Amino acid sequence: MSIQMNVGQLQEFLEQAFTHFPMRIVEVGEMTATVELETQAHNLRPGGTVSGPTLMTIADTGLYAAILAQLGPVALAVTTNLNINFLHKPQPGLLRAETRLLKLGKRLAVGEVSIFCNEGKEPVAHVMGTYSLPPTTS
Amino acid sequence: MSIQMNVGQLQEFLEQAFTHFPMRIVEVGEMTATVELETQAHNLRPGGTVSGPTLMTIADTGLYAAILAQLGPVALAVTTNLNINFLHKPQPGLLRAETRLLKLGKRLAVGEVSIFCNEGKEPVAHVMGTYSLPPTTS
Amino acid sequence: MSIQMNVGQLQEFLEQAFTHFPMRIVEVGEMTATVELETQAHNLRPGGTVSGPTLMTIADTGLYAAILAQLGPVALAVTTNLNINFLHKPQPGLLRAETRLLKLGKRLAVGEVSIFCNEGKEPVAHVMGTYSLPPTTS
Amino acid sequence: MSIQMNVGQLQEFLEQAFTHFPMRIVEVGEMTATVELETQAHNLRPGGTVSGPTLMTIADTGLYAAILAQLGPVALAVTTNLNINFLHKPQPGLLRAETRLLKLGKRLAVGEVSIFCNEGKEPVAHVMGTYSLPPTTS
Repeated sequence: MSIQMNVGQLQEFLEQAFTHFPMRIVEVGEMTATVELETQAHNLRPGGTVSGPTLMTIADTGLYAAILAQLGPVALAVTTNLNINFLHKPQPGLLRAETRLLKLGKRLAVGEVSIFCNEGKEPVAHVMGTYSLPPTTS
Repeated sequence: MSIQMNVGQLQEFLEQAFTHFPMRIVEVGEMTATVELETQAHNLRPGGTVSGPTLMTIADTGLYAAILAQLGPVALAVTTNLNINFLHKPQPGLLRAETRLLKLGKRLAVGEVSIFCNEGKEPVAHVMGTYSLPPTTS
Repeated sequence: MSIQMNVGQLQEFLEQAFTHFPMRIVEVGEMTATVELETQAHNLRPGGTVSGPTLMTIADTGLYAAILAQLGPVALAVTTNLNINFLHKPQPGLLRAETRLLKLGKRLAVGEVSIFCNEGKEPVAHVMGTYSLPPTTS
Repeated sequence: MSIQMNVGQLQEFLEQAFTHFPMRIVEVGEMTATVELETQAHNLRPGGTVSGPTLMTIADTGLYAAILAQLGPVALAVTTNLNINFLHKPQPGLLRAETRLLKLGKRLAVGEVSIFCNEGKEPVAHVMGTYSLPPTTS
């Protein structure tokens, strides 16, 4: 399966879909995508760590980008399940979500995400996501 | 087990912990809590439905409130796992998260959340959350 | 939506599908089903508690029965995700899985299960399950 | 952190803990373990595919082995959460569970498992597991 959208096309598509799209698509491959986010004040929670919803957002975006890259801009994938394990306290700075699709079927896509923080080698969180894919109209 | 914090005390505690706390604690019981949120523009995603991170935030807050209500304000519970199933498209308006703790052990608390939207009778999302509880110092 | 299969019909269907079907369907309602299992030696693990796979099996069967009850025997639902939280040590004896469907869509069904043990009032485990439903041929 | 138990020691430990231990530990590394199982008739379900509980069992065993390998035989880890995504129909034959711990904290361990089937290159299932670790008595 060839890639239908490259890094630049994905970035443009997502910036048009979301009025304020704060993330950067930095890599796309076969069944993979990597997304980065520079955290801002509103991404933090009391204690100064990155909030859970921020981690969920970057993971969901990364998996969505990976699906779009494979299927092209017509895809309208809908998240049906998201399971997140919080592993280490995420510090403010640069978040990087490395996503990989484990399955891209006709009706469902399933993928996993490891989220890294600044120069850390161990993921601060791990996410599994499932997406319902629209029926193809061909 | 008696309730350690009532609705007013929880509201005040959370408003002090979070600079802008947009939710309202509306009910607290034995192992339960209910939280409401009036959605705003930044809670919506393209298409006009409520975003996944908004649903995750209200669920996480509801479970946190339920734990605080049982253990009192000294508790510093940390979310370790959150699993969300998206069931129906959530419309803008009033979100209500009804939370119930299934377990409140010495080290872990586990609870479930049904999120309702406006006058809807069926939940738009269901969440399971696990929290690590700090060692008691007594 | 009316119920398509009653307790007796479900029991017979499952006994024909599985050569040795050790469970008993004890209740079926609108979007609900209850299943019981008397644990045997091979359901136990070291320490004498009920094994995780046994709990998973009764939960999966209960949700499958609830789907069959709503859709009738033509349904060929396939489990796509199962999330289990182990809450208390399950003792040998009578397990009871109370299942409830939260969503029964065209393509996906989502349900939850509380598993009780003997006379216990608190669930020993909680399960969320997602099922892919076959396209209807009507 | 050095490995506390090798392949042979793990195999012996698990065969003593479980009267009939049908699996084979085939690899142990830093935060990893690989377990194999030759499926038998009782592992199959109607239609001839491998049952969900069989997949759950090999995943749980693999993660348990990975924890034992790091902590030694004193460890008494208890599964608290298991989340399984079924990706492809698993055929009878040789199952291989490749497990990797993402976190090995003082109180919790979290790991992931990819389960492969015969010569298949794509996983038939993916599992996330969380384990509560006993307080150390040192």
